[in-house]
Amino acid sequence: MNAGFSSLGPGAEFDRIRLVWNRLAQAAEGGGDDCAIVQFGSEKIAISVDSMVEDTHFRVGWLEPGEIGWRAAAAALSDLAAVAASPRGVLVALGLNPEYPEDFSAEIMSGAAAAAKAVHAKIWGGDLFRCDKMMLNVTVVGGIDGKVLRRDGASPGDQLYVTGRLGGPAQALNSFLAKGSPEASARERFARPVPRVAEAKWLRDRGATAMIDISDGLVADAEHLAAASGVKLVVNYEKVPVHPAVENPDAALVGGEEYELLFAVAGESATLSADFRDAFDLDLSCIGRVEQGNGVQVFKGGGAVQIQGGYLHF
Amino acid sequence: MNAGFSSLGPGAEFDRIRLVWNRLAQAAEGGGDDCAIVQFGSEKIAISVDSMVEDTHFRVGWLEPGEIGWRAAAAALSDLAAVAASPRGVLVALGLNPEYPEDFSAEIMSGAAAAAKAVHAKIWGGDLFRCDKMMLNVTVVGGIDGKVLRRDGASPGDQLYVTGRLGGPAQALNSFLAKGSPEASARERFARPVPRVAEAKWLRDRGATAMIDISDGLVADAEHLAAASGVKLVVNYEKVPVHPAVENPDAALVGGEEYELLFAVAGESATLSADFRDAFDLDLSCIGRVEQGNGVQVFKGGGAVQIQGGYLHF
Repeated sequence: MNAGFSSLGPGAEFDRIRLVWNRLAQAAEGGGDDCAIVQFGSEKIAISVDSMVEDTHFRVGWLEPGEIGWRAAAAALSDLAAVAASPRGVLVALGLNPEYPEDFSAEIMSGAAAAAKAVHAKIWGGDLFRCDKMMLNVTVVGGIDGKVLRRDGASPGDQLYVTGRLGGPAQALNSFLAKGSPEASARERFARPVPRVAEAKWLRDRGATAMIDISDGLVADAEHLAAASGVKLVVNYEKVPVHPAVENPDAALVGGEEYELLFAVAGESATLSADFRDAFDLDLSCIGRVEQGNGVQVFKGGGAVQIQGGYLHF
Repeated sequence: MNAGFSSLGPGAEFDRIRLVWNRLAQAAEGGGDDCAIVQFGSEKIAISVDSMVEDTHFRVGWLEPGEIGWRAAAAALSDLAAVAASPRGVLVALGLNPEYPEDFSAEIMSGAAAAAKAVHAKIWGGDLFRCDKMMLNVTVVGGIDGKVLRRDGASPGDQLYVTGRLGGPAQALNSFLAKGSPEASARERFARPVPRVAEAKWLRDRGATAMIDISDGLVADAEHLAAASGVKLVVNYEKVPVHPAVENPDAALVGGEEYELLFAVAGESATLSADFRDAFDLDLSCIGRVEQGNGVQVFKGGGAVQIQGGYLHF
C-alpha cells in the first residue's frame, strides 16, 4: 500500500483506508499518492512504508531468504519510482520466528540491501522482532530532483502506457499455489521484481502526466489513477502486453505485484516506445487512452469487459 | 530497537543484530545509535523504525486502541529524542486481524497521530495489512538542528544523569501480568510514555556528552552507552529515582520501556537538576559517574550488585 490515503479506487480495503485518512485530517501531511511528499528544509523528500507478510503476500518455501528481502524492498522502492523520486535509504523491520537459523535474518537483510543497491540506495536501519509469521515492513526514502509525478495529472486526450510485460507474477503465484514449479522467467518476475526507478524519471522528462506502479493489478491501479485524475481510462485488452510464460492473458490485467509503471502521456508520440526500448531494453506499450468520465473500461474484441473481484467477466 | 546496529552491549539479541550489521557492511549508511543520521542534500535527517507486537510488547486487553497507537509512536519518537533530533514525520504500518471493528484501526492511528502532534510531528503515511497478531511498525523522521547527541561521547569524569522516575512501566506490567489493575500513574507511564524531545535538546545545549533513551532498562541501556563510549558507568542504586507506585525498586534499574533519557554530562553542575525541573516539571537525577574501564557497575549499600537476565543478584 501507500503512504497516502486519498485518491483511491473502489473497494472495501480502500474504504477502510479512507476512514483512517478522514480521521487523521489535520494531523497528516504529504499524502495522496504512492508516497508522502514533504518539504524538509530546502529538500523535498518522498517517503513510504510497505508491508509484506508470510501467507498473505508469500510463503516461505517459495522463495530463498535473499529473495524475500529483495522482493519486499523492491516493492517498497517501486512506490518511489511511481512518483519519479530517486531512492536514497531503506529501513527494514523484520519479524521472524526465533527458531529460524541465525543466518536467516542476515540473508533476508542482504537481499533487501541488494535491491536497494540496484537503485543506488543504502540501508539506513532496521529492526528485528519476534513474530510467529515472517513479515517485513520496509520504509523507503527518496529525493525529488524535478517535477513530482502524481496520479492526478491525467487529462482526456492523453495516451495510456504500461512498461514491461504483465502477468508473470500471477502465473508464478498460480504455479506455487498448485504446488508446481513456476516457469523460470515468471518465477523471476515474482521473486525479484524490478522497481522502475530510472524508467520513471525518463518518462517524466518525456511528458508523462500521471503515473502509478502496478501493485494491485493493472485494472485496479488504473481505477486509482482514474479516480485521482477524475477521468475515465479506456484499456484495449488486446494491447496489454502479456508475459510470455502466461497461460491465461487475463492475468496481465488482474494480477498484482507487477511493479511495472502505468502512466498517461499527453499527445501521441510515434517513437516513445522505441526510444524507451533503446534506453532500457524493456517493452513500453500504448494500451489505451484517457477520456472524460470516470472509472476504467476494458474493451476486448470490440465489446466491454467487466472485471469484478479480481476476475474478468464477459 | 534502533536503526543503527553497532555500539551495543552484550546479549544474544544484540549478537544477532551485530551479525546482520556485519553482513550489510558497505550497503549500510548512517547507523550506530538509536537512529540513522544521514546527510540529505543540505539537510541532516534522523530516521528510525521501531516495532511493537501484540503478546510480545503488550496485550490488547490492557490498552485502549488509542493508547496502542500512542505507545508505539511515542516509543519510536523516543529514538529521535535520544539524538536530540526534532521530530517531523511519522509513518505507521498497522497489522490487524480483519475481524476487529472498522473503527479500531482509525482509533489506533489517531492515537499515533496524537503522540506525533505532542512533539510537533505529522503523520506522513501508513499501511494497513492483515495479520493475526496486532502489530505496529513505526518509522520516525526528524531534523537535526544542532549538534547530534550520540552514545559514544561519554568520558571518564562525566556525571551520569537520568530524567524522570523509573519503574512505573515495569510496575504496571507486573500488575497486568498478575491480572490486576495497575495503579493509575504507573499505568499511565506504561500506556502513554512521553518521548523527551524538548528535554533532550535542552540537555544537549547544556553540555550533555552522550545520551540514550531507556527502552531496554536502565542498566541494559547503560551497557550500550558504556560500550559505545568505551567507558565504565558506575551507578549508585540508592540514587536511581523510583516511581512512587513501584513496590520493588529493582524495577527502576531493570524495567524497560521507560523512554526516559540516560546521559552523561561533563563536570559538575549544582543547578542542572533544579533548572531542568523549572523548565520541564520533571525530575533530573545524578545517579553515578563515568570512569575508565568498561561495562556497568551498580553499587548498593557500598557493595557491588550483579544484574543478570534482567534481574538483580546480590
